[in-house]
Amino acid sequence: MISNPIPWPNGARCAVAITWDMDADSGLNFWNPERADTMVACQTMFRYGPNISVPRLVELGRRFGIKQTLYVPGWCIERYPHAVDQMANNGDEVALHGYLHERANELSKEDELYWFERGIDAYKKHFGRSPAGWRTPSFAFSKYSLRFLIDAGFQYDSSLMGDDVPYVLDDNGDTLIELPTQWSLDDWPYYAYGREINMTTPITAPARALEVFRSEFDAAWEFGSVWISVWHPFLSGRLARIRAVIELIEYMQAKGGVWFATTSEIADHVQGLIARNEWTPTVEKLPAYTSPLPEFSERN
Amino acid sequence: MISNPIPWPNGARCAVAITWDMDADSGLNFWNPERADTMVACQTMFRYGPNISVPRLVELGRRFGIKQTLYVPGWCIERYPHAVDQMANNGDEVALHGYLHERANELSKEDELYWFERGIDAYKKHFGRSPAGWRTPSFAFSKYSLRFLIDAGFQYDSSLMGDDVPYVLDDNGDTLIELPTQWSLDDWPYYAYGREINMTTPITAPARALEVFRSEFDAAWEFGSVWISVWHPFLSGRLARIRAVIELIEYMQAKGGVWFATTSEIADHVQGLIARNEWTPTVEKLPAYTSPLPEFSERN
Amino acid sequence: MISNPIPWPNGARCAVAITWDMDADSGLNFWNPERADTMVACQTMFRYGPNISVPRLVELGRRFGIKQTLYVPGWCIERYPHAVDQMANNGDEVALHGYLHERANELSKEDELYWFERGIDAYKKHFGRSPAGWRTPSFAFSKYSLRFLIDAGFQYDSSLMGDDVPYVLDDNGDTLIELPTQWSLDDWPYYAYGREINMTTPITAPARALEVFRSEFDAAWEFGSVWISVWHPFLSGRLARIRAVIELIEYMQAKGGVWFATTSEIADHVQGLIARNEWTPTVEKLPAYTSPLPEFSERN
Amino acid sequence: MISNPIPWPNGARCAVAITWDMDADSGLNFWNPERADTMVACQTMFRYGPNISVPRLVELGRRFGIKQTLYVPGWCIERYPHAVDQMANNGDEVALHGYLHERANELSKEDELYWFERGIDAYKKHFGRSPAGWRTPSFAFSKYSLRFLIDAGFQYDSSLMGDDVPYVLDDNGDTLIELPTQWSLDDWPYYAYGREINMTTPITAPARALEVFRSEFDAAWEFGSVWISVWHPFLSGRLARIRAVIELIEYMQAKGGVWFATTSEIADHVQGLIARNEWTPTVEKLPAYTSPLPEFSERN
Repeated sequence: MISNPIPWPNGARCAVAITWDMDADSGLNFWNPERADTMVACQTMFRYGPNISVPRLVELGRRFGIKQTLYVPGWCIERYPHAVDQMANNGDEVALHGYLHERANELSKEDELYWFERGIDAYKKHFGRSPAGWRTPSFAFSKYSLRFLIDAGFQYDSSLMGDDVPYVLDDNGDTLIELPTQWSLDDWPYYAYGREINMTTPITAPARALEVFRSEFDAAWEFGSVWISVWHPFLSGRLARIRAVIELIEYMQAKGGVWFATTSEIADHVQGLIARNEWTPTVEKLPAYTSPLPEFSERN
Repeated sequence: MISNPIPWPNGARCAVAITWDMDADSGLNFWNPERADTMVACQTMFRYGPNISVPRLVELGRRFGIKQTLYVPGWCIERYPHAVDQMANNGDEVALHGYLHERANELSKEDELYWFERGIDAYKKHFGRSPAGWRTPSFAFSKYSLRFLIDAGFQYDSSLMGDDVPYVLDDNGDTLIELPTQWSLDDWPYYAYGREINMTTPITAPARALEVFRSEFDAAWEFGSVWISVWHPFLSGRLARIRAVIELIEYMQAKGGVWFATTSEIADHVQGLIARNEWTPTVEKLPAYTSPLPEFSERN
Repeated sequence: MISNPIPWPNGARCAVAITWDMDADSGLNFWNPERADTMVACQTMFRYGPNISVPRLVELGRRFGIKQTLYVPGWCIERYPHAVDQMANNGDEVALHGYLHERANELSKEDELYWFERGIDAYKKHFGRSPAGWRTPSFAFSKYSLRFLIDAGFQYDSSLMGDDVPYVLDDNGDTLIELPTQWSLDDWPYYAYGREINMTTPITAPARALEVFRSEFDAAWEFGSVWISVWHPFLSGRLARIRAVIELIEYMQAKGGVWFATTSEIADHVQGLIARNEWTPTVEKLPAYTSPLPEFSERN
Repeated sequence: MISNPIPWPNGARCAVAITWDMDADSGLNFWNPERADTMVACQTMFRYGPNISVPRLVELGRRFGIKQTLYVPGWCIERYPHAVDQMANNGDEVALHGYLHERANELSKEDELYWFERGIDAYKKHFGRSPAGWRTPSFAFSKYSLRFLIDAGFQYDSSLMGDDVPYVLDDNGDTLIELPTQWSLDDWPYYAYGREINMTTPITAPARALEVFRSEFDAAWEFGSVWISVWHPFLSGRLARIRAVIELIEYMQAKGGVWFATTSEIADHVQGLIARNEWTPTVEKLPAYTSPLPEFSERN
């Protein structure tokens, strides 16, 4: 089912990266610049992430002996440094996730770059080095984003959905590793709720969300793909849901043959394979379009 | 999984508060001030709460020997006093839930205070005393709400979502007990329906909603948190759903080690622990923001 | 759990009325007066009701030996007389459901009356007599509707949601029997789909919708209430769903003690009980409000 | 349950057509003409269809020895010819699905015709012949569409929902075979997600979507109807979901008596039956309306 299968370390059947987007209330502020300051209950729902869930994630990783990746907006590094540090000090990866959870592709090129650089600055100031990995907030990767990422020296991106295995993004010959994920592995569709975040669909029981995550894992295991969660500490870090996460990882470990890794470790592995000519990645040239389709102006 | 575990009375594993928001048609009127008077079917759906469900809740409490908390808007005390009295006369707690189910954080500070005081007045006029507890309608707790609650002498709030155990809210040194809940334990996402209340997602079967509530309870029991339902008489008080509630409470009692209490009793317990230095609560200073983030004006 | 239990014929545990709202494409035209004529696929989805499902409903009723009620807009009587006649000739009840599926409470009093009378005229012209029963399209019962229904000589309404058993609506001493239902027993939340009807939530599997309907039935059976489906031939009349309906009725009949009746027969029974003083109904005075609440103008 | 049963080849109980709408990012461009070029993550989600899923569909068909139908917009033939060719070279049917996934019934008659002809031109240019089959993008079949299809020489349409078995569309005596489907068999309601495509409801687990598809199949098998999937390679072609598709086809084949065919083969069969007078189809005259209903102007 996979036309370009990738060899995983030690003959593993598939790769699993438990990754978290620790947005806290950054997005709430970006989406509601005039009113977020008075959405207090919603703020506390989001702050549950850095304050309550993150120590729990550290505990989770230790319990299973795995390292995870925390994607974090620069503003959250500045505002919740204790949360970021707990993960970093535990040996987990901290990658970048914008500055204020801005939607890049709804901004001008200049504004996108402004917030992008501000995110990198916040990361560098805190950690004294540049981030290796990136995930675009709200999956709003723009036609300029790849160029910005390459110029800033990122190793990999994990925002796109074009394949089941890692691939390479190419902008005029410059490249970046892409570690694709998909909406199914995001916990937002199942757990996010609240009129103030524009989500009022039924909340999914943890066992039912698990059913989706596990079905994707079983397929990854059978066919050899990469499985990358896009979970949010304030959602999947809640007590009943972290129990489901525990159950899922137990299931994965019992099944065996799974390489648990951070997204950075996966990117390293992919780069090594390519450098040693052990595997040839699919290459996608981006952007696919630099302007709206000509078909429309042809008609009008 | 809980970093600041709280001792429950008699060594109970967790605390459970069955709490109900008896909105009746207050919110319908607030949300549709010009048209609510002619939404008759929707009104009857809401009035089912005070007229049909409340006697059932009394019966429920007696069956299991537990006391519950009814959060009620002041306008509902005036309009449906019989419903409020049935609970109060049964020894259940009646707490305050705004006046007309107004969304506080969408109002000016002056308007918020106007409706807030009107709610308190309605409560005092009916009961001859002030309410001990508060839940903000629609979870629309504003940056002014804590100050208003403290100044009005409330003992506790149950509108925020920042932890799994009770904590303390602090506004310039003045404090209030917070008894947190979360969206998962609200029945609105599963059961509310109607174009006139802007909910047109599939209605969840009682057994499926129960699955969520029970998963949260099992986690509360395992980890020692507080479990506070946010149910609505007009929704969970329906026949098929009250059967599910009965089944859930039977499950809880069979599991054992559960402290069933009103939110006021939980607040008393927390205050006692603090006073006796038997437990140190987490303290959250509010409001977190007093104005929109400066980041935006820095850019613009 | 029911404070005013009603005796059902022959000691039945509960009453079940299988009722259908045969809207066909009336609502589509009313909601989209300018564009419905060109929504052809959506039209065919709706016309499946009178053309394909209705013969199936007749077959269903014969199979189980039960009579059903078809609520039908006057325009559908004019446009799909064959469908209406099939039910009527089979001995099923045909009740009225507006003229063009207009939302009464979004119209002026004059417009509501215009369409209301046009619906009655269509019914009378076809059947040579007035309808006994009424259900307001879209549950949009207005503050004028009860008066119109009483003046037109209706026997009963089945549009409100204020109780689990029949009750009486009172407008200045004039009364009407109310046979209440609720959103859970409507099939729209589970099965309706299409951007052109503004429904794009996941479609529920028949077995899952059945779970809701059956849970309500089990509660009705246990507590003695009336169970009235609000199904749509174009939705629940689809093959996989009619199989679920068959399964449900088999379940009901196997359980036993169920009085299957049309809503008109239930109204007759209720009127008989009242006339013979064998049961005292709850009476609700309507409208509850004749103008917007004064609370708002008090503040402004 | 089916009033006009159709004989299937070799006494099969029902006909099953696995059909796919390979939209790729055509619709994204049509719906967002100004911004689609910068929705890069969403583009990659859609391009997963032609790039990753289509080879998988070929593999799927070979595994089970069945031929499928790929509905494809003309623009996708031009932009993703490799995907289209893989299916065509495998002996699968390629039918037409508009040009840019335009919503025909939201266009003027002239604009509808412009894009319609452009779609046909793209098909002819690539394949050297006209398409036999058509499905209107977004089920937006207009009151002009049937005339356009007949004049362009199409054999059949598969966009309407008016019956469970094939029927005939008639425009002033000119006819076209209709192979009806329904929303339940579309995978969009269960799997489509993303703010940029305006879908933010919970994602359904593959096993749960399968439950719907299988319930419809079981009904088709029991009653003798045609079962036509409307799946999207970028959705149901994902790994966990293709496993569910495999499981479903295994279930169908194990049950036996199923005629697997392309929609073109079904149309051939229907035409043969009619020509040999072995079956009389239901005929529906279209359009049902040529202008908005007169009822509205009568009132105003």
